[in-house]
Amino acid sequence: MGLILRGGTVVTALETYRADVRNDGEQIGMIAQHIEPTAADQVIDVTGKYLLPGGIDAHTHFDLPFGDMSTADDFESGSRSAVMGGTTTVIDFATQFRGETLTKALENWHDKARGKSYCDYGFHMAISEWKQGMTAQMEELVRKSGVTSFKLYMAYKGSMQVDDGVLFDVLRKSSEMGALVCLHCENGDVVNLLVQEAKAQGKAAPSTHPLTRPPAVEEEAVARAIALANMAKAPLYIVHLSTRGALETAERARQQGACVYIETCPQYLLLDDRRYEGESFESAKYVISPPLRSPEHGEALWEGIRRGAVDTIATDHCSFNYQGQKELGRNDFSKIPNGMPGVEHRLGLLYSAGVVPGKISLNQFVSLTATRPAQLFGIFPRKGTIAVGSDADIVLWDPQATKVISKVNHHCHVDYEPYEGFSQTGLPVHVFLRGRQIVRDGKLLDAAPGGRYLFRKPLK
Amino acid sequence: MGLILRGGTVVTALETYRADVRNDGEQIGMIAQHIEPTAADQVIDVTGKYLLPGGIDAHTHFDLPFGDMSTADDFESGSRSAVMGGTTTVIDFATQFRGETLTKALENWHDKARGKSYCDYGFHMAISEWKQGMTAQMEELVRKSGVTSFKLYMAYKGSMQVDDGVLFDVLRKSSEMGALVCLHCENGDVVNLLVQEAKAQGKAAPSTHPLTRPPAVEEEAVARAIALANMAKAPLYIVHLSTRGALETAERARQQGACVYIETCPQYLLLDDRRYEGESFESAKYVISPPLRSPEHGEALWEGIRRGAVDTIATDHCSFNYQGQKELGRNDFSKIPNGMPGVEHRLGLLYSAGVVPGKISLNQFVSLTATRPAQLFGIFPRKGTIAVGSDADIVLWDPQATKVISKVNHHCHVDYEPYEGFSQTGLPVHVFLRGRQIVRDGKLLDAAPGGRYLFRKPLK
Amino acid sequence: MGLILRGGTVVTALETYRADVRNDGEQIGMIAQHIEPTAADQVIDVTGKYLLPGGIDAHTHFDLPFGDMSTADDFESGSRSAVMGGTTTVIDFATQFRGETLTKALENWHDKARGKSYCDYGFHMAISEWKQGMTAQMEELVRKSGVTSFKLYMAYKGSMQVDDGVLFDVLRKSSEMGALVCLHCENGDVVNLLVQEAKAQGKAAPSTHPLTRPPAVEEEAVARAIALANMAKAPLYIVHLSTRGALETAERARQQGACVYIETCPQYLLLDDRRYEGESFESAKYVISPPLRSPEHGEALWEGIRRGAVDTIATDHCSFNYQGQKELGRNDFSKIPNGMPGVEHRLGLLYSAGVVPGKISLNQFVSLTATRPAQLFGIFPRKGTIAVGSDADIVLWDPQATKVISKVNHHCHVDYEPYEGFSQTGLPVHVFLRGRQIVRDGKLLDAAPGGRYLFRKPLK
Amino acid sequence: MGLILRGGTVVTALETYRADVRNDGEQIGMIAQHIEPTAADQVIDVTGKYLLPGGIDAHTHFDLPFGDMSTADDFESGSRSAVMGGTTTVIDFATQFRGETLTKALENWHDKARGKSYCDYGFHMAISEWKQGMTAQMEELVRKSGVTSFKLYMAYKGSMQVDDGVLFDVLRKSSEMGALVCLHCENGDVVNLLVQEAKAQGKAAPSTHPLTRPPAVEEEAVARAIALANMAKAPLYIVHLSTRGALETAERARQQGACVYIETCPQYLLLDDRRYEGESFESAKYVISPPLRSPEHGEALWEGIRRGAVDTIATDHCSFNYQGQKELGRNDFSKIPNGMPGVEHRLGLLYSAGVVPGKISLNQFVSLTATRPAQLFGIFPRKGTIAVGSDADIVLWDPQATKVISKVNHHCHVDYEPYEGFSQTGLPVHVFLRGRQIVRDGKLLDAAPGGRYLFRKPLK
Repeated sequence: MGLILRGGTVVTALETYRADVRNDGEQIGMIAQHIEPTAADQVIDVTGKYLLPGGIDAHTHFDLPFGDMSTADDFESGSRSAVMGGTTTVIDFATQFRGETLTKALENWHDKARGKSYCDYGFHMAISEWKQGMTAQMEELVRKSGVTSFKLYMAYKGSMQVDDGVLFDVLRKSSEMGALVCLHCENGDVVNLLVQEAKAQGKAAPSTHPLTRPPAVEEEAVARAIALANMAKAPLYIVHLSTRGALETAERARQQGACVYIETCPQYLLLDDRRYEGESFESAKYVISPPLRSPEHGEALWEGIRRGAVDTIATDHCSFNYQGQKELGRNDFSKIPNGMPGVEHRLGLLYSAGVVPGKISLNQFVSLTATRPAQLFGIFPRKGTIAVGSDADIVLWDPQATKVISKVNHHCHVDYEPYEGFSQTGLPVHVFLRGRQIVRDGKLLDAAPGGRYLFRKPLK
Repeated sequence: MGLILRGGTVVTALETYRADVRNDGEQIGMIAQHIEPTAADQVIDVTGKYLLPGGIDAHTHFDLPFGDMSTADDFESGSRSAVMGGTTTVIDFATQFRGETLTKALENWHDKARGKSYCDYGFHMAISEWKQGMTAQMEELVRKSGVTSFKLYMAYKGSMQVDDGVLFDVLRKSSEMGALVCLHCENGDVVNLLVQEAKAQGKAAPSTHPLTRPPAVEEEAVARAIALANMAKAPLYIVHLSTRGALETAERARQQGACVYIETCPQYLLLDDRRYEGESFESAKYVISPPLRSPEHGEALWEGIRRGAVDTIATDHCSFNYQGQKELGRNDFSKIPNGMPGVEHRLGLLYSAGVVPGKISLNQFVSLTATRPAQLFGIFPRKGTIAVGSDADIVLWDPQATKVISKVNHHCHVDYEPYEGFSQTGLPVHVFLRGRQIVRDGKLLDAAPGGRYLFRKPLK
Repeated sequence: MGLILRGGTVVTALETYRADVRNDGEQIGMIAQHIEPTAADQVIDVTGKYLLPGGIDAHTHFDLPFGDMSTADDFESGSRSAVMGGTTTVIDFATQFRGETLTKALENWHDKARGKSYCDYGFHMAISEWKQGMTAQMEELVRKSGVTSFKLYMAYKGSMQVDDGVLFDVLRKSSEMGALVCLHCENGDVVNLLVQEAKAQGKAAPSTHPLTRPPAVEEEAVARAIALANMAKAPLYIVHLSTRGALETAERARQQGACVYIETCPQYLLLDDRRYEGESFESAKYVISPPLRSPEHGEALWEGIRRGAVDTIATDHCSFNYQGQKELGRNDFSKIPNGMPGVEHRLGLLYSAGVVPGKISLNQFVSLTATRPAQLFGIFPRKGTIAVGSDADIVLWDPQATKVISKVNHHCHVDYEPYEGFSQTGLPVHVFLRGRQIVRDGKLLDAAPGGRYLFRKPLK
Repeated sequence: MGLILRGGTVVTALETYRADVRNDGEQIGMIAQHIEPTAADQVIDVTGKYLLPGGIDAHTHFDLPFGDMSTADDFESGSRSAVMGGTTTVIDFATQFRGETLTKALENWHDKARGKSYCDYGFHMAISEWKQGMTAQMEELVRKSGVTSFKLYMAYKGSMQVDDGVLFDVLRKSSEMGALVCLHCENGDVVNLLVQEAKAQGKAAPSTHPLTRPPAVEEEAVARAIALANMAKAPLYIVHLSTRGALETAERARQQGACVYIETCPQYLLLDDRRYEGESFESAKYVISPPLRSPEHGEALWEGIRRGAVDTIATDHCSFNYQGQKELGRNDFSKIPNGMPGVEHRLGLLYSAGVVPGKISLNQFVSLTATRPAQLFGIFPRKGTIAVGSDADIVLWDPQATKVISKVNHHCHVDYEPYEGFSQTGLPVHVFLRGRQIVRDGKLLDAAPGGRYLFRKPLK
């Protein structure tokens, strides 16, 4: 009745070693040099494969409303894409829209996800409108709903952007209740000015987008965010950090005692602003915020990853079709919905571009994609490692297998693939979620989604 | 017809030397080891005295409206107080209130000052509301009116505070036209939150004021201001800097190429937050923004002055009577008008606390109080030094004379004296404005104010 | 034939979880929620205990010659003390004395240790005299003898001190062969001057010792060492770092890409320079280099440990008896042999002062005392963690047990105890070395020492 | 009997203004808008010219022994070259050789200079060998001989290099007596290793020289020097700083309270390491220490100058003929005497490359070349400015005149010109030394040298 993975190499954030692993129900029950199967046990030979803890993507936006549409991926297609890429847990951003309570926003997201997710999932709560009474709602989310992280935006003036007073207040409250604030750091006032100015000058093409969000706009916001967090004595999680300057600011602050965590995404490591060259509307596929940067920023981020300055790598998967969605901004770059897909290729891209050429170790790879997100968001060691007693979320990684990434073979519901043509070395051949195999030889087994909601713990 | 000051010691930002000085009309005409008077010349023996360039206070608020009142000092009493203390030039903040054009605001200030000032005066323009068309008004102020500096506030949410987009835009525009932006750096959003929170908790005493404006609120704003100025490729003048952290941030930025100038004020060097102790409403006399700080900040500022990191010392003279004005906040600290007098005692306090104990040299004293403000605000070498061809604004400083500062002997129109009881060593015994003696033996000679408006030059 | 530790809690640098652990021969063979013993298995109930990887002390000096004496502890007493405290591996400093080859020095140390060590042991090679031909000897040590780290001294002028040219050269050579340089960082020239000066002034008491080695002497040397290592493109391991300034320098350098590892010791965390107060010769017990520091340095080190800036905690165990050895300096502080014992109490002190009050987590405790030393010195994952396939060096830690540290109960051969009277919470009740129990209920089981030499791997 | 310079523009470190200037004897007696000559006065029309204070070169080596030769320039040719270029004061390095007392070394230098210098001159004392009794000699030099600065070398192992103990000791002693230590900052141990290694590899060409003294060798030494000066509570003057990193280190140290002054030289601003390309022995002309750097360092130095981080620009004039002297190293780069000429072209080069293109202002030009050296080395305001009472050392600078620098027109005694072919804009047409004209229309007037020894004041 147990399942024995025989002959593989276990990889955690700490060790790499040869061992057999047996699931006992939903958890890992035994790790040993040799496990002798009983009659009830099933044995899978995984010789030559790595056993990785299932990937955790702490930054997705599935089924996010946008005007009167929604993102191209809902929880079903988004989570399918995730598990096919070796990610067995996502933490999605439940989003409060103006006029809603946080409680209502959480209900909305439960409705979106319930019964539709192939992977396990948790929610952060993104706050767009802050009122006094909301402290009690926050408390309830943390204590009763297992939502132990909140997100605020320093950009998107007029919609999601909050002012520094709100930011400071939410940081303080979060810290008191052991919750973590996730922050989108760009100076929205300056961005707004630059956007209005560009439009007044008749600039309409997507190539204008990055010019309205220069690196300094992020760097300033990161410095301010850390200052406010220090004032509030609160830890801080910076989402999708994309610039050299912001990274350096964060590290210097840490040395002086700040508690700041950094997330970056594969697009800031593997793509760059040459995607915006020319006036073609094709660039709209890469209209994301922060925008893609010049290559020196990517190099600085890789260097930061190498020396341990970056905590997590997530995707900010927020997918819009090129046709019908990105096209809304054909005549006005500022109307292009911001975002791109990515949840499926996170592990593959990072393995190919990081582990294979030796930029990072296998253990760092696991740390960035599974262990640290689990630790920071209250689900470790249940998720994020391979250890006795942990959920048996295991990815069998074949380091020899390869593929070419393309929209013809990806599993999300988007009509383009931003990494089209990238070669991937290393593939998730089998994927197990809480002991149950859901991907075999790269094919989805589950007819019905079996992911569950994760009640997360607060930081102590 | 010339006036010869014989036997004194000339002090500039650079040198200290024995010389006779003769005015020729409004300018300094001759400096020599010995000047032989002609029959037409008047000779004043100034042996044992220092000849200092007339002080320049680049930060005053005379006749500033506040609700339906105004500050206790108008240009007449304010400028009288200035010249009695050795300051022969002020640069006052003409202030645009919401709904006004900049042009109108300048006219208002000309009306306030015309014929009423004992010292020469220029205007900065404080902008409270920014609209697109105002660029042309700025241009006109710089080119046609000699107003080459603009002020913005990062604090005072709901009244003077502008958002970062406006700040960035005005920085860019100013830089293009060679104007300098003066900035009040405190994070107004956070201050506003802390004020509302304190009031909700029933805190009403003036001792609450500093708690709502902690050092970090300034430190963050200074870092942000410099980041925005760098983005705008604009120089920046930070008014009344009061904290160690902000000073360190500014210096680090300079080392990395930022062009940032720093002003502090005597109150941040000589007074501290013990003035807020207890629940007495007397503390209202020291309700200013930024507030008085703990002593370590003053020590850091002195140290910064010593090593040349501070450019100017101004006063932020903005006087409100205790009775009838400060008292508006008897039941609500947030209603206490912010500000205190100081224009008269700037030189005396800095000399006594800085030069006498050897913290700074005589030359630094002159640089901070006259030369650097003249250079930064476009009136050097006409003002700010003693050199042939410069305006004969000369203060005869008696380094042996002493007095006790008190409201019974100050010359401004305020019903209290924040430095009450401070001993002053060094007094301005004679004061000359453009060659004409206006103070003799510490007494005002002028019946009618003779100050003139200063048309200032832009930075190149 | 296997040994099952049942019911304990496994602690690694990464995870803390409930599991049974079984040794298979010398290695850990199985970790599981429940292990069903076969007839051949022995089961020990360890409920309520932590299973820690055996401690690794990377900085000891056993049987070190000093004049015509040697340290109080040889490998027998030193290693006994180690295992009684939960340390199952030491890396001792084989030391080349002037005139010796490195090869000869290594032989000497093998002779000292062979058959006398209760714990496993490796050797660093300390170089006192550098000649051209020695590169080949280094190469041989690394490739054929498993000595993959070298030590140099920037202090002890006239004996161990090498000049910056040697330091640079050895750094380059080490880096080329994948070896790590361990460095004693104090500016020996300045120390020497201060010692000679103090002696000339008639200062003889041990209280003079710290005055001749002020914090700046270490801070300068650390900065220089990092600069030289960067020039040589070599990693660097700084031994017994003791000051705030040096820590900050090292961290800033890391952020700029330097590869620098930091070791500190319990004495710099738990003792301070008040031990030198007065003129009593008792202070000689604490004459070590670098000396004990003022408390602020200890606080900075704790803070650095908390944020992950410190890699390892070792002891610099170098013990001299008070009588007959320390007393050599009764009339001349500079003749007091430098050093103190500590190998036995490292785990206990750090657990009591770090884990119990919540300054560091259990996982950090393991990382600092076992995992990081194993990784940096080429014996991971064989040593330094609890994982299938690793050596079964396991310490059963009883978090409830307590004792008072004293010379009456310690196991080293020194006639005083520097931590006399310190309370220890948490005790190693059972200790296993490669699967064999060597300590039971706090009592040494082994009649004959069973430790083996560790052939270490180079850094890649 | 006075000399009136009429119609020129006076330039000091502070001001630029139109004035007539009259010498009274050796000093400046009068500065005025108009000076009416008496019958006894001589009037020179200097309309269109700048009146600059005579240049001060604080770093020359005239008549320096080298083996059994001496530098190409003695005091006669060196000082002639100086005054022809507008430099009226040099501070030369009297140099103690091993075995000499400081007193004897000073006598030697007085003998070299007496009656042979066209400009005024002072001496620093370079110490090569430090013994206890020398403190008294230092004291005597400072008090009785007017030598208030000492020089030490961190490089030139085996000859001038002192160890860190000596450096620290001399820093302390100097500080106590108000003297300033000038420091050559390169890590001599590392340089020595690299030189020996290069020679062992058969590298002989002058192109090897810079490879043995990489930027990091200076950067490390500057950091160490500042650390030692801070420990000694002593100010520090770093001679010929040449690298970006060292500049940044010095500035950061200043911000933290260090008192460190920086000198650089025209060669590090205007020449670069492309002069070493190829294997030609011509490169020997540029064999100086520190060596010429890659262009980025020069840019960083210019930027540092612009923001006020550099105090002085001197030349390190230490001239060796190509034939017979530089050629000593034809077969061994390490035997090439280090140094090059430059005293004549300092003002011209800096004016042409700094003032003309607007990199620095006229006032900064004066500050760097005259005012700051005078202030730091105890001869201000006697030298270094144009003020009533100062020595009438005046250079009439024609900003329109031009020339091409060449060995055919330079006035030193060296058989090559390192700046051969450089265009110079701005020339010293007349030069006055203490009121007496010594250069007229670019021609030397003096038959006999009239320079005097300068007794310098200690820093307070």
